Amino acid sequence: MTSWIRFDAPDAGGGFGMLVNDRVLEYEGDLFGEARATGVERHLGDLVLTSPCLPGKVVALWNNFHALAAKLDKAPPKHALFLIKPSTSVIGPGQAVVRPASYAGKIAYEGELGIVIGRRCTNVEPEQAGAYIFGYTCINDVTAVELLGEDPNFAQWCRAKGFDTFCCIGPAVQTDFDWRSARVVTRLDGVERQNYPLADMIFSPAEQVSMLSRDMTLMPGDVIACGTSIGVGTIKDGATVSVSIDGIGTVSNVLRSADGER
Amino acid sequence: MTSWIRFDAPDAGGGFGMLVNDRVLEYEGDLFGEARATGVERHLGDLVLTSPCLPGKVVALWNNFHALAAKLDKAPPKHALFLIKPSTSVIGPGQAVVRPASYAGKIAYEGELGIVIGRRCTNVEPEQAGAYIFGYTCINDVTAVELLGEDPNFAQWCRAKGFDTFCCIGPAVQTDFDWRSARVVTRLDGVERQNYPLADMIFSPAEQVSMLSRDMTLMPGDVIACGTSIGVGTIKDGATVSVSIDGIGTVSNVLRSADGER
Repeated sequence: MTSWIRFDAPDAGGGFGMLVNDRVLEYEGDLFGEARATGVERHLGDLVLTSPCLPGKVVALWNNFHALAAKLDKAPPKHALFLIKPSTSVIGPGQAVVRPASYAGKIAYEGELGIVIGRRCTNVEPEQAGAYIFGYTCINDVTAVELLGEDPNFAQWCRAKGFDTFCCIGPAVQTDFDWRSARVVTRLDGVERQNYPLADMIFSPAEQVSMLSRDMTLMPGDVIACGTSIGVGTIKDGATVSVSIDGIGTVSNVLRSADGER
Repeated sequence: MTSWIRFDAPDAGGGFGMLVNDRVLEYEGDLFGEARATGVERHLGDLVLTSPCLPGKVVALWNNFHALAAKLDKAPPKHALFLIKPSTSVIGPGQAVVRPASYAGKIAYEGELGIVIGRRCTNVEPEQAGAYIFGYTCINDVTAVELLGEDPNFAQWCRAKGFDTFCCIGPAVQTDFDWRSARVVTRLDGVERQNYPLADMIFSPAEQVSMLSRDMTLMPGDVIACGTSIGVGTIKDGATVSVSIDGIGTVSNVLRSADGER
């Protein structure tokens, strides 16, 4: 059971390492290639965590849970339905989600499981897909919901979900994780708002990786956001959303207003 | 009037340089940062051109021409409507568009102007946007059109336009280019299929950069595909599509079947 984090250290700048309780064993090189222990050991409390990976793209699924599909009265899709969140949307645990200066409408949280790709991946079978999954993380797939239907002719998924800071990832990438028995719990200012089982997924992680690998090459560090289930709601400026998955941890982020007042 | 290309040279691998007639003055460093002439001069005929930039993301507009909006009976949008094509979709001039093995349906060409971003760009006014535009290029925004409406609940823009090889960019990035007087001409196996004026754009390049910079940070090398106009059609396996813009050049690509037979 290995948990990888990335961090900023006051004395040494950015780095990454393996989390063992509250100790961090520092590594150097490429997390997805050749990673070597430096021998340096740090204390978690001395570090500021950053996003545990730097995805070139985040592929975010829509309508991937039976419970939410039933609630929305949508048929389960035949193929994974997705949009792309750009790399510029990614932040790590503890960083602020910033309301876009141009948008005064509702902003929603969506707690999700994230799949982190470990190897370049094209046209793989579901049975092979596990070998391309490096690990799993927690995601808050933040959404400017009022933009989705703003234009009657074009659902603006990439715009509503693509703003800078709208993809919270962390705290770690967990390499050994059994999604079948885990739940996603989302709290808004400490109050539980989502608590759903990952076993309710329409497409399993292996099926997602296989399907998406037929749609585009997935690269090391790329992230698949597995979609959310029931309990999505809006975040007021100044509120904090925490997404927790047992065995991975919690990614927690405040929504800051555009002028920084809250 | 400076035209920048990227290339593979048989003796030296990948590089980039300035195109002057059929001579290429090689540069080293960062095209968008500090680029220095190496003193090496190459002949265009000795080189294989590659995509003239390596965008982290391609932001592709929909419904940005008055003529196409009128033909489709759609109102002009109030804000640029877009999807994201991933970096893995990008190819250069002369490279093959490859039909996905999983898709037997119609594949369409869309000839477009491309804007290449030169500087990190967030929340800029239209009047400032020009300073963030490095130059312009030609794009074929290839689309697996039958996927767009395959699911009744979710238009699959990113999937239909995001396959590997579905974003043809080139042949060069032209730093001095007056889009107001230029036309996009698309030819299918040499027969003209699109010939439309860029002056018909709903949102000008400066307006696009300004609007999109409020939606997400644009990075050096990122590309905005300005949308297409009337004349879009389908490509048979083995056919070649050429997108030409006077003052920039022509990007020409064959559609190859998944099994490589044509």
